Amino acid sequence: MEANERDYVQSLERGFAVLLAFDEDLTNPTLAELAAATGLSRPAVRRLLLTLQRLGYVANEGTRWSLTPRVLSIGQHYTATKAMIELAQPHLLRLAERTGESASMAELDGQDVVYVARVPVRRIMSINVAVGTRVPAHATSMGRVLLAYSGPEWITRFLEEAELRRLTATTVTDPVKLRALLAEVREQGWCIVDGELEEGLISASAPVRDRTGAVVAALASSTSAGRLVPDKLRNETVPLLLEAAADISADLGYDRTRGTTARDGFF
Amino acid sequence: MEANERDYVQSLERGFAVLLAFDEDLTNPTLAELAAATGLSRPAVRRLLLTLQRLGYVANEGTRWSLTPRVLSIGQHYTATKAMIELAQPHLLRLAERTGESASMAELDGQDVVYVARVPVRRIMSINVAVGTRVPAHATSMGRVLLAYSGPEWITRFLEEAELRRLTATTVTDPVKLRALLAEVREQGWCIVDGELEEGLISASAPVRDRTGAVVAALASSTSAGRLVPDKLRNETVPLLLEAAADISADLGYDRTRGTTARDGFF
Repeated sequence: MEANERDYVQSLERGFAVLLAFDEDLTNPTLAELAAATGLSRPAVRRLLLTLQRLGYVANEGTRWSLTPRVLSIGQHYTATKAMIELAQPHLLRLAERTGESASMAELDGQDVVYVARVPVRRIMSINVAVGTRVPAHATSMGRVLLAYSGPEWITRFLEEAELRRLTATTVTDPVKLRALLAEVREQGWCIVDGELEEGLISASAPVRDRTGAVVAALASSTSAGRLVPDKLRNETVPLLLEAAADISADLGYDRTRGTTARDGFF
Repeated sequence: MEANERDYVQSLERGFAVLLAFDEDLTNPTLAELAAATGLSRPAVRRLLLTLQRLGYVANEGTRWSLTPRVLSIGQHYTATKAMIELAQPHLLRLAERTGESASMAELDGQDVVYVARVPVRRIMSINVAVGTRVPAHATSMGRVLLAYSGPEWITRFLEEAELRRLTATTVTDPVKLRALLAEVREQGWCIVDGELEEGLISASAPVRDRTGAVVAALASSTSAGRLVPDKLRNETVPLLLEAAADISADLGYDRTRGTTARDGFF
């Protein structure tokens, strides 16, 4: 479908802008704070807030506004429409049990990965990531796996356009080096990233394929680097991870004897 | 803030209507199917879809539309703005470990409860509930706890207005009986509901209080009735549940030596 400016509903965009302005730094904003955060006029923000309030997504106490739990229902519609997520849940639980480490599944959305399922494991230093959390793809094992299998055009575009931010001292930010790492991921079929997103965070990831062989998600096992050295992660966690990813792919109808898609074979 | 019709942004409501039309029954709808589901005209749905597409919330393949994982980010803003959810997570993990059963936390939203946090436990017959899932308050232990402490005006309004649907053979649908059950919950400080939401599903729930003593969430431990009889749930799970709920409340700044709020004491 081709869109032009007349097809664009500006108030819808503005409504989302107001909704998304509520964050860690602005948990209970005033109307004025929301206007400042969104760049919209106060009367516009007021109308949008009153509409969102009537729809049940925000509530106010005095002059302070906050999100309501109804906001979570929007995301739940995503989960409910993706058979993959429901189907993957028992495999994530089993992986978390077998490894004793948190298990996650993510999808690519632009230059980020978005957590779509997660089974946390209790630790003193636990990694607090909720479903819906976004992290930069280039610095995470799930992102590298998803990028590796995203096709040559997408990889080129990503390497040209993405802001490859240095998040720790070891984050790979050189497009040439990153391209080589992605080729390596395709070759070995999994990926370990050690401390490139956050100091002390290490994770291994493997691709999940659908019926057609296309990589639709990345599965990961992650922990703190203090608990698990890369060698142990490679030798003990990666085999369990690959098994779980293969099980989810099989449940999605992927027949591994048929080999991978043409898209994978470009390199 | 007082709202009037002029303050209402209709296209925002319609945008959400289109977004929420995607569900279990309509995972990959066409424009025509979305128009039918929302009662909006096709040109209106088309404009809203193109806007949602530009914002990254929906994608199309041929004539079929689907939600993107970006939709999950909206709910993530709720989680990020509520310190309670992050703070409760380790307690939920510990409760799930100690009981061997799934642990959940929910808030009241109108006549439903919404899951805001959850730690699943692997079972052959596992209960598949994602964060953001809504269930009717009257038929669940978390709902009963939240209603019990919602104040006399709210209880009366709920009992008058809510559709107390019979979901299984044993669902309590009589407002008089339900009111008595809510009084019982307040008296004992916890609640067990056995098979009223779904045959074979049993759960225990306890209130979580904030600094002011107000009940802000319900914590629950749930399992299949085949695994755990009510007696065992009462004797073994409820003490652990009460301990976890007290720990979360303490982390939220609640001082249990100061007693409960005036709102609790109305009966």
